[in-house]
Amino acid sequence: MNDKWITEAAHGYGNTIRVTKELFRTKSDFQTIEIYETEKLGKLLLLDGIIQLTSYDEFAYQEMMAHLPCQLHAAPERALVIGGGDGGVLRELGRHSELKTLDICEIDAAVIDAAKRFLPELACGFDDPRVTVHIADGSRFVAEHENTYDVIIVDSTDPGGPGAPLFGEKFYRDLKRALRPGGVIATQSESPWLLPDVVKNLNRAAKAVFRFVGYAGFQVPTYPTGMIGACVATDARDVTAPCREVAPELAAQLRYYTAEIHRASFAQPAFLRELLT
Amino acid sequence: MNDKWITEAAHGYGNTIRVTKELFRTKSDFQTIEIYETEKLGKLLLLDGIIQLTSYDEFAYQEMMAHLPCQLHAAPERALVIGGGDGGVLRELGRHSELKTLDICEIDAAVIDAAKRFLPELACGFDDPRVTVHIADGSRFVAEHENTYDVIIVDSTDPGGPGAPLFGEKFYRDLKRALRPGGVIATQSESPWLLPDVVKNLNRAAKAVFRFVGYAGFQVPTYPTGMIGACVATDARDVTAPCREVAPELAAQLRYYTAEIHRASFAQPAFLRELLT
Repeated sequence: MNDKWITEAAHGYGNTIRVTKELFRTKSDFQTIEIYETEKLGKLLLLDGIIQLTSYDEFAYQEMMAHLPCQLHAAPERALVIGGGDGGVLRELGRHSELKTLDICEIDAAVIDAAKRFLPELACGFDDPRVTVHIADGSRFVAEHENTYDVIIVDSTDPGGPGAPLFGEKFYRDLKRALRPGGVIATQSESPWLLPDVVKNLNRAAKAVFRFVGYAGFQVPTYPTGMIGACVATDARDVTAPCREVAPELAAQLRYYTAEIHRASFAQPAFLRELLT
Repeated sequence: MNDKWITEAAHGYGNTIRVTKELFRTKSDFQTIEIYETEKLGKLLLLDGIIQLTSYDEFAYQEMMAHLPCQLHAAPERALVIGGGDGGVLRELGRHSELKTLDICEIDAAVIDAAKRFLPELACGFDDPRVTVHIADGSRFVAEHENTYDVIIVDSTDPGGPGAPLFGEKFYRDLKRALRPGGVIATQSESPWLLPDVVKNLNRAAKAVFRFVGYAGFQVPTYPTGMIGACVATDARDVTAPCREVAPELAAQLRYYTAEIHRASFAQPAFLRELLT
């Protein structure tokens, strides 16, 4: 397979990545999992043919999903990740020494197993002694918890896959119930260039439930359109500015997130501002 | 050609766009010019196989290249575009009623001709009575002008093509000489994800010449990595904030640029901040 290109295309265009070796492929109970060695971007993880991450730019996604909500909570102790079976968001949460427990609820154990074998630089997130893994349906898990978490991160696949229940207003109500006072959520919220209706509807669902809601856009070149965003919401404070300093020992480890990027990511091009009002 | 995909790939990955019809193809004295009808993104312009624009997202590029420097000048009267033969930057400059003359220096008359025939929604920029077209080498044109312009926009191809002389310190010195006091430049400055050395070197060249320099990043999904940036420089003022209000009649026409986006576009991910210091 010296000249194989993996292409993810929708809306008449997409991304294409040259891969040199298939490292892993399985069909789990939920989805097809593929991991490739690429020519220039390190490893590539696909779920049902959709690009989840490459070693090249995964730091941008994981850092923003983890640090946006953590830096909006004055003293977070309990964090939950829904999805995120590759371990990357856990890895980033692990950099917060103030967190005491890191729960993760992933529906597909096969993703975790594959990441532990082939993506150790992400799956190292599971090595943290504060981590507890729950193999379960994320929407049910959230509904069964009340007043439990300070930060919840929904690192889901797209609305079409097993993550479908994670895109409605009912789920946002359950997220709110699962938070302790002052709690903050960040949910994978797609690209307004590709799925404007999803961005719009998630924003609307979150606004119906939370007092402060924002869409934070960030660059992830290997995702279609080169960017993606998080819906960040809380009842505690304006989401567009971190509420505390980025700890110097945290900042020293980061390649994307900064306090300035936190603020800037909520600035929206005119067409998106219109979509979100 | 019902199932033709045009792919621009480098660094082991790239963008691919489905096209339905070839509208135009010629080999000019400088480059191969191709225009396609795409399945979902409107028209597509390629120069030497490199994606220059699609109807879908060209507004983001043209607006940022034109309005960033214009909003950094208190009262710009004379503007110059180097390159930009499609007319898109001229179209955006034309929205500034305070501008009195719009010069454009494009090396390749064939690009202008093709745009006038097949990209009227961009080439309408040439219809403005304030426009004067110069068919000439941009680096020479700039070197021949002194104390002439308030705003200069370098809408160039990549460093590999006919735009190569537009990427060195000598050119930045000439740009400065061509400006009147208070003048501002914005030059196409590539993506730090793809060409970090170009971004770094342009920044260094501009800093050697101008007092205030910044890299403004913005989303253009159909460019490789989904974003690109402008090197914005002046001796007059900090480039990261517009120095005057966006006129309401201008703002009403814009889909990307806002004062908030102007400021946010200069916020840099940690890895890029490091690259630019």
